[in-house]
Amino acid sequence: MEITSTTQEKTQSNFLKAMFENLKVKFMETAMKAKKIGEDDPRRILHSIKVGFALTLVSLFYYFRPLYDGFGQAGMWAILTVVVVFEFSVGGTISKSLNRGGATLLAGALGVGAEYLANLCGERGEPIVLGLLVFILAAVSTFTRFIPKVKRRYDYGVLIFILTFSLVAVSGARINEIMELAQQRLSTILIGGATCILVSLCIYPVWAGLDLHNLIAANILKLSASLQGFGSEFGDVGSSTSYLQIHKSVLNSKTTEESLANFAWWEPSHGRFKINHPWKLYLNVGGIVRQCACQIETLSGCITNSKIQVVSKFQMKIQRSCVKMSLECGKALKEVSTSIKNISIPSSAVAVHLNNSKAAADELKNIMENYSSSPNEADLQQIMPILVIASILIDIIKFVEKIAVSVSELAEKAGFKQAQLLHRGIVKPVNINDDQLVLEIVEMK
Amino acid sequence: MEITSTTQEKTQSNFLKAMFENLKVKFMETAMKAKKIGEDDPRRILHSIKVGFALTLVSLFYYFRPLYDGFGQAGMWAILTVVVVFEFSVGGTISKSLNRGGATLLAGALGVGAEYLANLCGERGEPIVLGLLVFILAAVSTFTRFIPKVKRRYDYGVLIFILTFSLVAVSGARINEIMELAQQRLSTILIGGATCILVSLCIYPVWAGLDLHNLIAANILKLSASLQGFGSEFGDVGSSTSYLQIHKSVLNSKTTEESLANFAWWEPSHGRFKINHPWKLYLNVGGIVRQCACQIETLSGCITNSKIQVVSKFQMKIQRSCVKMSLECGKALKEVSTSIKNISIPSSAVAVHLNNSKAAADELKNIMENYSSSPNEADLQQIMPILVIASILIDIIKFVEKIAVSVSELAEKAGFKQAQLLHRGIVKPVNINDDQLVLEIVEMK
Repeated sequence: MEITSTTQEKTQSNFLKAMFENLKVKFMETAMKAKKIGEDDPRRILHSIKVGFALTLVSLFYYFRPLYDGFGQAGMWAILTVVVVFEFSVGGTISKSLNRGGATLLAGALGVGAEYLANLCGERGEPIVLGLLVFILAAVSTFTRFIPKVKRRYDYGVLIFILTFSLVAVSGARINEIMELAQQRLSTILIGGATCILVSLCIYPVWAGLDLHNLIAANILKLSASLQGFGSEFGDVGSSTSYLQIHKSVLNSKTTEESLANFAWWEPSHGRFKINHPWKLYLNVGGIVRQCACQIETLSGCITNSKIQVVSKFQMKIQRSCVKMSLECGKALKEVSTSIKNISIPSSAVAVHLNNSKAAADELKNIMENYSSSPNEADLQQIMPILVIASILIDIIKFVEKIAVSVSELAEKAGFKQAQLLHRGIVKPVNINDDQLVLEIVEMK
Repeated sequence: MEITSTTQEKTQSNFLKAMFENLKVKFMETAMKAKKIGEDDPRRILHSIKVGFALTLVSLFYYFRPLYDGFGQAGMWAILTVVVVFEFSVGGTISKSLNRGGATLLAGALGVGAEYLANLCGERGEPIVLGLLVFILAAVSTFTRFIPKVKRRYDYGVLIFILTFSLVAVSGARINEIMELAQQRLSTILIGGATCILVSLCIYPVWAGLDLHNLIAANILKLSASLQGFGSEFGDVGSSTSYLQIHKSVLNSKTTEESLANFAWWEPSHGRFKINHPWKLYLNVGGIVRQCACQIETLSGCITNSKIQVVSKFQMKIQRSCVKMSLECGKALKEVSTSIKNISIPSSAVAVHLNNSKAAADELKNIMENYSSSPNEADLQQIMPILVIASILIDIIKFVEKIAVSVSELAEKAGFKQAQLLHRGIVKPVNINDDQLVLEIVEMK
């Protein structure tokens, strides 16, 4: 009997121990995940603290009655505004605050008009007229949210417009009461919105514009890493293929870029980004970068799918050209990315690397023209994979050039500063042979 | 003098006319745009009407005081809920309603607890404790919004949680007052949410799940159209190249697919889509479809960039294989798309077309193996573009096969119905020659 009880106790304590262990493991896992999210972008932790701070500020303002005696129940609108309006970036916060303020003002005025109109129709007609007006305005406003331009910029404003109009129209209050209420509501929204904008502007501001700028630079750097990885690993048996994954995230960055560009539009000038900075041009660059990433995706498919055998001298030659093309393209993109990062006009090094890669492409064409004269080469079937890779690389050169051109256009329109060049000059090829292409940069006075 | 005055009048009337004309043109343009948005998806018009209807319903409910005497000021929360919660799809509406309800309940309870705790700390300690609690909860909750899973499913809930907790904690009301307020608030949110869910469910419901299902089918059909267009136009001089644009929209559909899948998760069973329908598998299929679209993008780049000259007999043979591969791939994708559209298991026709395209690829390999034996062909440089196109098409076959496999897996897991086959049987090649591949479908008992 006693033994059984001890066994039971043991089982029970074991069960509790296991449960405790399990909970501990789960908690540790969650903590690790949260830590990673914070480490990936420490601004997230800062943002959370900023939201808490702004909310506490407004809450205490609301809590100390004497301070806000003029606000009454409307004080909660300040808290509501802070919670709903505070976004990660300055642009997002400003966009939502202005949308909220503007829409409340407009809808309030229209609501008063509606109330006035309904009053004219007598007691029986009033609810019908009000119901009709709410229906028409809500339906029409909701429809405008499908217009791309409205959706992009004023989506939240339209929502608040519908909300405020319905509340005012239906409140059933007399017009002078509404005016008083509207004044209260507007001033509290102003307090909430201003708190959000000030906190997000003054405490480690997160600029959507700068984020977009850096995202484009980072994406170009990823393509560069991909191409340079390919250049240095291609042909090595058993080499790492991790570089084949780098470009993947670039393929799906369109939505992020567009929302950052929308927010950036609302931001005041900051750092080297003035108001009227050509944010739209970043989307152009981003589009071409994605097209280039698509080419790299196909390239990486070719490398993964086909067994590339480099056996003949002919194939060796092609391989050498491929390596050169992709390394030089990678270097060109790296230069472009660095210039964006430094907010400077792309240096002449971009043109140098582009010319080098084009020279490699010409070299390749030469090799191929001489192919038919050497009949004892391996058959077409065998050399096809490397030919395809070469051809895609030639196309990639074109995209790299397009990226360089679009970034130059952006740099010009946005007034990027002149690069601090070690050398400035014209590029002059001095010695082209089969093995190496030497370029000389001739210093200009 | 009189003449001048007449001239002035004329100028003025001309100016007014021009302004009127200008306004008329602008108005017409906007109307045309709006008409197009409505025509593109008439459900948008219906959605706008539904929002207007739900809002009018709740507004009138709020307007007729006698009906809602129990609600007091809280009645406006019903209107607020409708405006904020009503989404285009049923899943979106349910997701937001449940998030709002659940978060309000949880935050209300915690808020009461916070108020109780603060009360214990005396009059001087109360604001400090409340401020600290609001700060900590707002910061921690805001941080959880960066966790991908929370962001995907409970983003709106966390927002409402912060809002309600702050409002309750800061209200300064006694606990029994809060309980009463909470009951009011919850019942109004319930009325608002239930109105939205009912209207969006009962009046021409828009199912996010069905939209996702149709989007995947439409994207596969686009790739099919692209490949079939290429197959029928390739080699025709001066042929239309509009088919080169069809696949473009597929490249950027990831975000739409993901948000539809998130909303679909919340929807009750509808049509042939049960609860626990494997929505995640659609994202798998979508991912492979996008990879295939990337290959087609490279293919279309090749077609646009290179001048393909088909002069020799050898090139003619390759071209014929390319045409066959791309037509058959296109047909296979069309069958896959049709089967998804009909919610049925992909028919054996998919395998037939895939086998045909593989046979064409084998044929191509044969042609290439025999190339080195005919030395007076054009040089490598000249045949390279068509070789690259052929190679990409061979890769595309692999992706089409992957799409077919992933759709079959989806069809199996989701319990799609058996296709209504005209023929069901095994496929048997009966006659393979250089020109044509004949397949016979042997009827099974």
